[in-house]
Amino acid sequence: MAIDYQRLAVEGVQSLSPYQPGKPIDELAREFGLDPASIVKLASNENPLGPSDRALAAAQKALSDLCLYPDGNGFDLKQALSVRLGVKADQITLGNGSNDVLEIIARCFADADDEVIFSQYAFAVYPLVTQAVGAKGVCVPALEWGHDLDAMANAITDRTRLIFVANPNNPTGTVQGRAAIEAFLDRVPANVIVVLDEAYCEYLLGNEYPDGIQLLPRYPNLIVCRTFSKAWGLAALRVGYSICSPEITDVLNRVRQPFNVDSIALAAATAVLEDEAYLQRSRKVNEAGLRQLEAAFERLGLEYIPSVGNFIAVDVGEQSQEVFQSLLAQGVIVRPVAGYGMPCHLRVSVGLSEENDRFVEALEHSLNKIRQGG
Amino acid sequence: MAIDYQRLAVEGVQSLSPYQPGKPIDELAREFGLDPASIVKLASNENPLGPSDRALAAAQKALSDLCLYPDGNGFDLKQALSVRLGVKADQITLGNGSNDVLEIIARCFADADDEVIFSQYAFAVYPLVTQAVGAKGVCVPALEWGHDLDAMANAITDRTRLIFVANPNNPTGTVQGRAAIEAFLDRVPANVIVVLDEAYCEYLLGNEYPDGIQLLPRYPNLIVCRTFSKAWGLAALRVGYSICSPEITDVLNRVRQPFNVDSIALAAATAVLEDEAYLQRSRKVNEAGLRQLEAAFERLGLEYIPSVGNFIAVDVGEQSQEVFQSLLAQGVIVRPVAGYGMPCHLRVSVGLSEENDRFVEALEHSLNKIRQGG
Repeated sequence: MAIDYQRLAVEGVQSLSPYQPGKPIDELAREFGLDPASIVKLASNENPLGPSDRALAAAQKALSDLCLYPDGNGFDLKQALSVRLGVKADQITLGNGSNDVLEIIARCFADADDEVIFSQYAFAVYPLVTQAVGAKGVCVPALEWGHDLDAMANAITDRTRLIFVANPNNPTGTVQGRAAIEAFLDRVPANVIVVLDEAYCEYLLGNEYPDGIQLLPRYPNLIVCRTFSKAWGLAALRVGYSICSPEITDVLNRVRQPFNVDSIALAAATAVLEDEAYLQRSRKVNEAGLRQLEAAFERLGLEYIPSVGNFIAVDVGEQSQEVFQSLLAQGVIVRPVAGYGMPCHLRVSVGLSEENDRFVEALEHSLNKIRQGG
Repeated sequence: MAIDYQRLAVEGVQSLSPYQPGKPIDELAREFGLDPASIVKLASNENPLGPSDRALAAAQKALSDLCLYPDGNGFDLKQALSVRLGVKADQITLGNGSNDVLEIIARCFADADDEVIFSQYAFAVYPLVTQAVGAKGVCVPALEWGHDLDAMANAITDRTRLIFVANPNNPTGTVQGRAAIEAFLDRVPANVIVVLDEAYCEYLLGNEYPDGIQLLPRYPNLIVCRTFSKAWGLAALRVGYSICSPEITDVLNRVRQPFNVDSIALAAATAVLEDEAYLQRSRKVNEAGLRQLEAAFERLGLEYIPSVGNFIAVDVGEQSQEVFQSLLAQGVIVRPVAGYGMPCHLRVSVGLSEENDRFVEALEHSLNKIRQGG
């Protein structure tokens, strides 16, 4: 009798659909017979500047030790983060991207009979890691594309173990101010862990936005997650981290794979933290790009969700899939977000000025073609 | 009331002690005030040759794209593995080291009420990943330091979901021949997954050893795991993989993090597969080093476990911890294996000839000192 191996999998895994990443440039080039160099990828919220010179030099240097295992404790990177963020090294958990940290948190604190709360339109990895551990995901309807923190607090039950809050949120680009986050945290019982995912926090300007790390002393149930994949420009290397109490950090590190961050990643992330000029340049280019895209959308009569991240979700109507395909054929990759329940939007990452222009031109061309065809 | 956050963790995690990696060179240098360049590390079964030139060149080239996410599907690496191993790309699951693959397998197929079988003295990660998912580890006593496959088959119950077999085994260096593995697989019910961990298989010489990949067509419940961290010399980059049926591969890839292997790792691993000369050199240096260490142990009157891996476990007696510390003070790092239930052994990785000599000298010095002191 043949065995159905899919049915042998644990329950949560059986019905799991993996995360759909943005289409890689090489894949598009293969499929459409395009020159990879001509393709503009604005699909994965990557930093368009290219890597920091300091990060590159450090990565380069680390290549000489390819045969040796990484430092499993990430001593140097934790020291550097510790100095920069004003926290202790024993509050830091390093991850293979912040995806890894989010998954570790779910595996540590949520089990088959537990509930995990997240928002509608929030980052796709929250429901995935929840389902993989067999817990029940509780998806709270959004308010004007953003988290409805009151409703999320109201959704807490005796079975709630974990709440994911993305601030700013991906793919909508919305953000909650400090007062809102504090009011929310005040309502969450201390035995429920709150994960404040600040993957895009380095792009925030102004003081009205909360810095989760400053809230840690008041909320022992808080875990703040961040990444080197966005403003720090190291998506290729996979480095994220969480900051929380030493007690919770100890739990997370029990589940963390001993060598989850590789040597090149450790070296580059440690070095890039010294490159404040790179970070400032990233912010400036992003700010200018957001304004450029907003102006274009307004000119084209398209609604968009005002964003504080390095991406923006634009409403191109019911034919968004056709627009997406037409953009691909023109060598421009953006991200459909139908999987997030946003079938009319496309999410476009902020590129360099000329990349944004190419996207806008291609978008205009697609829309005209579809309008004429329809 | 203060919350005990450790008690909030899921049951398996509460009592988990993380894997203890070999001491990094920088850490020893800091602790003992030694020059890092003078330290010989034979603690983590790393390839002493230094990286393959081809791998290095490919890694170098990949640095230009640090800002871009890796190819989440690992297209090029899977193609290269597919050609080399004679399997299809949809049979391959890539991992952040084989540790990642082992963990993914446990998370897919073992749950709170399940049993997972492994051998005494087998790789420490098997009980760790078992406990982290809350399953019950069944540790079967070894036979002359190796897996007792008959006893392991006898240990199968209705609740057994997974069996880990390390072949060759770390830290003992023992190996099971083809007939023994086949006889074992014939006894395992088809609804129990067998993981054949062949992390060290590239060091095997001769035809009597089974190549798990050849067994896959006959055993649909078999998963073969391998790594680039040992003979291929890429421990710093964290690349491992499993080969099994497309059906099981599909399950594993649902749980795999979408970007679990980074861009530099993908590029270097793809390139190193073309460097057959490097692999042959690795094997030759290892074979010579094993003979060198065996001869030294015989001269010193020390018993050792004959090994087919790139390491060897030597019995230095009850004072092994003192010997280990004395070696550290002399700038030589080996691995204590008391945590494996082998309190009298130290595991030493095979180094270059001069590194092996330094270890032997330091060992002789330590033993003499302890004998004189005792």
